[in-house]
Order: sequence, then C-alpha cells, then structure tokens
Amino acid sequence: MAAVSGFLTESGANITSSDQHSTDPEGGTFFMRMEFRLEGLQDRRQELEQSFAESVAAPFEMDWRLAYLSDRKRMALLASRDEHCLLDLLWRWRRGELPGVVVAVISNHDLHADDVGSFGVPYHHVPTTPSKEDAEEEMLGLLSGQADLVVLARYMQILSADFLERLEAPVINIHHSFLPAFVGADPYRKARERGVKLIGATAHYATEELDAGPIIEQDVFRVSHRHSVNELERIGRDLERLVLARAVEWHLNDRVLVHENRTIVFWD
Amino acid sequence: MAAVSGFLTESGANITSSDQHSTDPEGGTFFMRMEFRLEGLQDRRQELEQSFAESVAAPFEMDWRLAYLSDRKRMALLASRDEHCLLDLLWRWRRGELPGVVVAVISNHDLHADDVGSFGVPYHHVPTTPSKEDAEEEMLGLLSGQADLVVLARYMQILSADFLERLEAPVINIHHSFLPAFVGADPYRKARERGVKLIGATAHYATEELDAGPIIEQDVFRVSHRHSVNELERIGRDLERLVLARAVEWHLNDRVLVHENRTIVFWD
Amino acid sequence: MAAVSGFLTESGANITSSDQHSTDPEGGTFFMRMEFRLEGLQDRRQELEQSFAESVAAPFEMDWRLAYLSDRKRMALLASRDEHCLLDLLWRWRRGELPGVVVAVISNHDLHADDVGSFGVPYHHVPTTPSKEDAEEEMLGLLSGQADLVVLARYMQILSADFLERLEAPVINIHHSFLPAFVGADPYRKARERGVKLIGATAHYATEELDAGPIIEQDVFRVSHRHSVNELERIGRDLERLVLARAVEWHLNDRVLVHENRTIVFWD
Amino acid sequence: MAAVSGFLTESGANITSSDQHSTDPEGGTFFMRMEFRLEGLQDRRQELEQSFAESVAAPFEMDWRLAYLSDRKRMALLASRDEHCLLDLLWRWRRGELPGVVVAVISNHDLHADDVGSFGVPYHHVPTTPSKEDAEEEMLGLLSGQADLVVLARYMQILSADFLERLEAPVINIHHSFLPAFVGADPYRKARERGVKLIGATAHYATEELDAGPIIEQDVFRVSHRHSVNELERIGRDLERLVLARAVEWHLNDRVLVHENRTIVFWD
Repeated sequence: MAAVSGFLTESGANITSSDQHSTDPEGGTFFMRMEFRLEGLQDRRQELEQSFAESVAAPFEMDWRLAYLSDRKRMALLASRDEHCLLDLLWRWRRGELPGVVVAVISNHDLHADDVGSFGVPYHHVPTTPSKEDAEEEMLGLLSGQADLVVLARYMQILSADFLERLEAPVINIHHSFLPAFVGADPYRKARERGVKLIGATAHYATEELDAGPIIEQDVFRVSHRHSVNELERIGRDLERLVLARAVEWHLNDRVLVHENRTIVFWD
Repeated sequence: MAAVSGFLTESGANITSSDQHSTDPEGGTFFMRMEFRLEGLQDRRQELEQSFAESVAAPFEMDWRLAYLSDRKRMALLASRDEHCLLDLLWRWRRGELPGVVVAVISNHDLHADDVGSFGVPYHHVPTTPSKEDAEEEMLGLLSGQADLVVLARYMQILSADFLERLEAPVINIHHSFLPAFVGADPYRKARERGVKLIGATAHYATEELDAGPIIEQDVFRVSHRHSVNELERIGRDLERLVLARAVEWHLNDRVLVHENRTIVFWD
Repeated sequence: MAAVSGFLTESGANITSSDQHSTDPEGGTFFMRMEFRLEGLQDRRQELEQSFAESVAAPFEMDWRLAYLSDRKRMALLASRDEHCLLDLLWRWRRGELPGVVVAVISNHDLHADDVGSFGVPYHHVPTTPSKEDAEEEMLGLLSGQADLVVLARYMQILSADFLERLEAPVINIHHSFLPAFVGADPYRKARERGVKLIGATAHYATEELDAGPIIEQDVFRVSHRHSVNELERIGRDLERLVLARAVEWHLNDRVLVHENRTIVFWD
Repeated sequence: MAAVSGFLTESGANITSSDQHSTDPEGGTFFMRMEFRLEGLQDRRQELEQSFAESVAAPFEMDWRLAYLSDRKRMALLASRDEHCLLDLLWRWRRGELPGVVVAVISNHDLHADDVGSFGVPYHHVPTTPSKEDAEEEMLGLLSGQADLVVLARYMQILSADFLERLEAPVINIHHSFLPAFVGADPYRKARERGVKLIGATAHYATEELDAGPIIEQDVFRVSHRHSVNELERIGRDLERLVLARAVEWHLNDRVLVHENRTIVFWD
C-alpha cells in the first residue's frame, strides 16, 4: 500500500478512493483497488504504466491492471422470452447509471425488436433452432472483439464451454435462486416444493460448470406458503433486476476481483 | 368456513382470529385456523368436541384438532457446547414471550448447569460417549411423555430415526445455513468457500432425513469477502437465535401446520 | 364471519380466500375481505347485492362493498421529470402484473411522449406554469369520471385540497423517504444530513395534509457515510419503484382498507 | 495515505487493514483508519507517537489518535426495567464478542442484581427518586474516570446536559425507533398510530439534544396492521439488541468517527 500510494502521489495523482483486502493478515494474498485523478493522464499512459511496472509491481511481484475511466466498456445483452432484466439494464444505461456502452442485444426470440430499438441499440434475433451450434457461431461473430462484457439478462440457453472460451470476455449471468440452492432449471418450482421462506437471485460470472461460477451479488425476498410458482416468479423478477443491475454496475466500475472462484467486491 | 364459524357462533364463542389457506381454489386441500373465546369452555370441552366431530367434522371429512390455551406445552431444550440459542430461549420464556413451560435442558456437555439453574430449570448432562445409543436411551427416559416439544437449540448430535419415532413429540431444529444450501456439517465454512453474499439460518422440524424436514422459518444477513469463518459464525449466532425463537413461538401458539413436507404458518 | 360465509355458501359461491382483522377481540371494529367465485355472477349482481344488504349487512350494521374482478379499474399516472416509477408501472401493466387499465399519463414536463406512446397510452402534457390552478382544472377535465385511481409516480407538484376533493378518486403517492421521517421536499438531502444508515420510500394515499395520509407500503435499503445525495437518489429510485408498484397492485386487487388514517392490507 | 502508510512501513509495522473516506474528492475532509501489527510496540509507544506527530501529522495538519488493542476499554452499562439489551451485552461480552471490560452495571430499578451478579459484574442500584440530581451525582461518582464508554441499554431516564459534560466519556444510547421518526417517549405507540409498515431501532451517541446525536447504526423489521403496541415492543426488543450490540462493538474496535453530527463507520 505504501509503495503504490507513494508512487501515485509522486506522479502527481490525487487518490480519490482506496480499498484493500488481505486473505490473511500474516502472509495471505493482498488485494488493493485505488482510484485516482491525474491531469494529462491520457498522454502519460505508456510512461506511467512502464514506470509502475518496473519500480513498484516488479519488486513486489504484483498482478496489476490500470483501467481508464475514459475507456468505456462495451456491453452486449442476451435475453430470451422474459424482458424484465433486459429493459431494466437498457433503462439504467440510458439514465446514466451504467458507465459503459450497450453495443448489441441478442435474443433467441423475435420479441424485443421494438423495445430495444427505442433505445437505439441494434437487435439481433439468433434462434437456437434448428442448431444451437450455429447459433453460438453466429453470436461469436457478433460478439468476438466487439464486447468487453456479455450479460445474460435471463438468457435461458446453456452456453457451451467452447463458446465461453472463444468469447474471450467475461460473462455475467443472473440465476433465479439463492445459489448454491436450486441449481439448474425451474428454481422457483423447486423453491416452492422445498417450502423455503425466502426466495433469492444470484448474479455470478458464468463458467464451464452450470451455476457454479464466482458469485458477485445475491439478495432475497420473503415469501410464504401462499405464493404459487407464478407468484414466486413475479416476485423474483424484481429481485433478478436489482441483483443483476448491481453486479453489472460493479463490474463496469472495475470493483470486482475474482480469486479462487470467489469475488472480492470493493464498494468504495 | 361457513360450517365451522357457524358452529362456533351458535355455541356462544367469540371468534377472535381466523386464517385460511387453500392449496388450490378449485378442489385443493383447505386449511383453516380459528381462535375463539368461550365462557366456561373448560367444563364444556368434551361436549363441544363431540358435537363438533359429529355435526361439522364428519360431514366435511375434516382433520381437526382443538388446542386449549390453558394447556401449556411442555418444552425440553437440547444444546451442545454453544449456548446462545439455549440462553435466548430461556430469556424469552422467563420474559413471557413463549407460551409454554420449559421442563428440562439436556446437553452432551457439562457446561451450562449454572446458567440453566438460574432459571429454575433442571439440567441433565447426557454425554454421547462412549455410547450414543445409551445417550438416546437416557434422553428418551427423560423426555418420553414429559415433553410436548423438543427444541434442538444447537444440539450438534444427529438423532437416530429410532429416537425420533419413539419420542412421539415434534422436534424443532435450527440449522445454521439457508437450507437447502449447505446441508450437514460446517455450513459456515462451506458458505465461505462458495463465496455467498448472504448467510442464513433455518428452523425446521427434524425428520429422519438430515436437514430435510419441513421448514418453519428462515432468515439471512449480508456478508462479504471480508468475513472469516469465525466472523460468519458470530454473525450467524444472531440469526440462529432469532429464527429459532420465531419458529418455537409459532409452534407453541399452534400456528404451524405441516402438509407434504412444507409448513403453513398462520401468523394471525 | 359466520353470517357472511354462510350467505355466500348458500348462494352457491365458492370462497377462495378470506382474511379478517379485528382492532380489538372484545368489541373492536371487525374487518373482513372475502374472495369468491360464483357461476353466473354477472346476471345476479343486483339480486345478490340486495339480498346481502337486507339479510346480512343490515342486521350487523356492516359497511360493505362488492368488487367485481371483471370491472377493471381505470388508472391514470402522473409524473414529473423522473420517469423511473412511470416506466416501471407501464412495464408491469403490459406484463399483466397490474389488474387494471392505464387510461392516461399526465406530466408537467414534455419529456415522456415517446416512452408512453410505445405502450399505446395517451400522453398529456399539462404544464403548471404560468398557472397551477389552470393545470389542476385541466387535469380534472381529463380525470374526473375517467379514472378510478390516480397514481402520483413521482409527480413533484403539491395537489390542492380542492383538487383532491373534486377528483372523487383515490390518489396514491410515492414519497422518497421512510415516513414520518423527512416529510416534504428534498428527503434524500435531509437523510444525508441526519446521517441515517437506511433510506426508505413510502407509498400512501394522498390527503389534504402533505405526506400524512394512510401508509400502504414502505421499505428501506442500507446506506452509509460513503453515499452522496446523488447516490442516495439512485438507490432510492429502486426502492420507490418497488414500493409504489406493490401499493398499486394491492389497491387494484382491493386488498387495502383505510381505517383511522391507517391501512389494513389483506395479502391473501 | 502515502505518508501514513510509508511511515508505518518504515517503522517495521505490518498494516493489516486500512480504510479511507473523503467527504469530497477535491478538497474535502479526508478520514483514514489503519490497523497494524508491530513487534515490541509497547516499548516504542512514546517514541513512535512523537515521531509520527512530527514527521507526518504536523506537515499534513492531521487530527490523529493511536489506539492500542491492549488498552481494553472499560464499559459501564445503564438499564432500567427491561433487561433484554443488558443481558445481551453481558452475554456477548462473556462470549468474547466485545473487546472491552464491563466494569459496572447501574440501574434505577432493583431488579437485575442476580442476573448481573452471575456475570461477576458489580451492580449498583441508583434510584432516581426522590431526586434525579442526586442520582446523577451518585452515578458520576461511580463512572467518572472509571469508564471509557457508557452504554444506555434501555435506560429510560433522560440524562442532563450537565451530566453528559461532566462524565467525560462517550455515551451510546439505543432508541426504539427509526430516527428521526418518533423522537422521545413511547415510539412504538406512535409507530402504531401512524401506521408504519416497518419498525426500527437506532443506536446513537447521546448528546444534549434528545435523540439527536450522531447515528451509529439502525435497522428495521416488517410489521403490519395486526401488531398491537405490545407486539411491536416484543419485535422491537430483538431489533434493539442487535442494533445496540453492533454499535457498541464498532465503538470498542475504534471503527466509529464522528464528523458534523454524523458517523463514519469503518467496517474493515
């Protein structure tokens, strides 16, 4: 911390926010996130990064990354039939709550063209029938190198490991349960059958293993024996919107670090 | 509903609270709970129950039960090393929040005699070594016919199916996770490893299958990557106390019905 | 309860839901809400209502009302600059979550015509300058007899007592604080200044006295010293949307009774 | 940050936790809390503090304070009739959750001697009749210079400004409402009358002005029209225990800074 903050201060930067986490005070892995402002940073990028690499990162054997606020992340949103998460993200983006650019919306249904069009975002209908392989191929063509983040905003198709690997961009999924409970299909029905008293939603990075990637955010709402599966779905939609939006915002603001299949979320 | 409320009204009762639930408005199972006051009820118990059975319950093929507020339920509390749930229930009972009588505390540790003694409740130390079978036998001797409810207030031994059957009383357990996530031992460690953002506690009726009985109540607290397993345990203790106390209170007030491994909890 | 359920059962109705509340078990005011299905109800409305009035309501001196599910309530939505509550209600309505008809959107800003138009709902721009009186007059022309419910979806003008009286329809407002804390203007700034650790939102029926009408629903989110007023506003928008939507849905489903400036909300 | 962390690192300390807050990134007040471990710190206290004052604090005009974990804070607990907060704090302290020493319990009621005695803590009965002035005088005699923190664990007497000033120790109070709503007496009755849908509790530093001091922590529970004032009180007791315990723990761990009648709580 002393080394990094010393370097930045000497470079003329004003550190506006800093957060740290150590997995163990004695000898654990140390994580740090600093935000700073620096006049004329654009012109000094290369010099600053090289100098930091040599004088700070190398001696301490740091893994590090500099993210520039001016490099806005390009997002693609994928959705299936339900549009609540999709519309919510588009609206938040229009409102200025999400610091990025929505470059495309893709759906396996031909339902959302008008809604998406009204936000000025290109809409691609990529059906998964007859061939899911072809659909993934077509989506890779649309996304590879075009998107810095892919958000599965209730996209109900399982993406192959091959797709995730070739995409070369992080993928955030919203799962409609409190993971690790109710992995896989139909979690509200399973929740109803188990008789839980709270239902949840979980935003996580998608990995090869279904619903097992690092959790970014979760939340729950109270329910009772009175709620049918349909009503759980309705209540759950509100949860899904909130939880996914928080996860996307934190990712876009570079607040999320992944370590050993867990996330470290630096709120400030 | 018309039949039951009509019968009670004609009997001179004042219905003070009523709640219903139907699993399906067309042809599902119908559940109802009514509270009423009736002058001189003690002397009319037998007559009233027989009359209800014949004129109302029989024609509608009801499963029914009359619980008398004056018949206070006898509770036994079982605990292991941790005393937070045990003390919390004793405090609440002394303060009049739990409408029953604590008739015994049993522990496999010899740690709580002073604490329990100050509440005027008998304390039984029943070690599970060398023989768990002997321990269960001894506990059955203490509990059979003596307790209308057994509360596992962080009792960390698994009770055998044989014990549960011979006990002939409902058993409420507090599990220190948001079931069905993290069944079995060490749920806080598992929660830490999975990186969940909320931890939970679940009060449920104990059944033969571990942590799979009907859920009475659940709640969660927010946590983050910063919390060690020890800290999750500390936070979790508050959850466990609250969730268990609510479940016990609802049971003692005859607010909980079990149907198909789920509970119907009538709050009013 | 016996009289009403008896009457309905004898009329051939199937009671699908029932809820009661008594302000005092001995001699308080008794409230009841029953849902029922009855074949051919449409043709028997008059006969049924008259018969109920004479044989049940009169002897018990009941205040009563029969609401027919087929009579969908007509809603008008009023909004100012912020559109988050407005859009959220329109989305929910289009998705079928709100059992009514949105008949008009009125705003004192000329900002939402495109958004509202895409839902097929008429949009009226009624500026409050130069004359607020004229604006109210114009709105009364649009709403009187046309709307069964008026929702102030972040409409930031104070409506006069005269307007509320002549409107002859209930008005639901969303206030962006946990009432009764922070009545009036700028509640997020006041919350920041007082240093509260949770911010809230409150949906209530509008009455002559500002922010003092019967509360229908409230909820809160956790905040900290780190949140600026802008960030409180952003977090608060999510709260406002959720809380207002619940209140509107409950009202449309005739779940809300008002008694002595408080609400009784029958969830089932 | 660079200066402080540099100084500590050069002194041989291992910084185990650090948190910062700036009221405004450009020119606001900057707050920082660092935890560190340093071999042989006890013997170097004076030297280290002097060196820090001269080489770091003076040039940056810092307000600063070094707190030593080995200097355990002495707490006194004040309670009236209700014992739930008192017992909860004593139990947490015995359990090792509160890093301090409970040096005394004072009550204006003669009810808790046995309970408090079982924790090995001196109990002082200081009645406020006939003279509240005398009671404050007697309490000052017991507390002045003897307590580093005074906790009002449901102490229902208003302490005079003179008492607070002469005490020369911070005082944490638990108020049984969501401040600033329902200041003063009988908040649950006021909550019931206003018809709020959530009740709250607030832990704050006591100041001359009643219930207006800096808020440390707040939380809420959901309630409904069904809850009588008595039931709100019962539900509220759980809230009060949790909220007060968190506030006391944070204070004892030096996590709370006060600035302009607001708190900055550094969780880690």
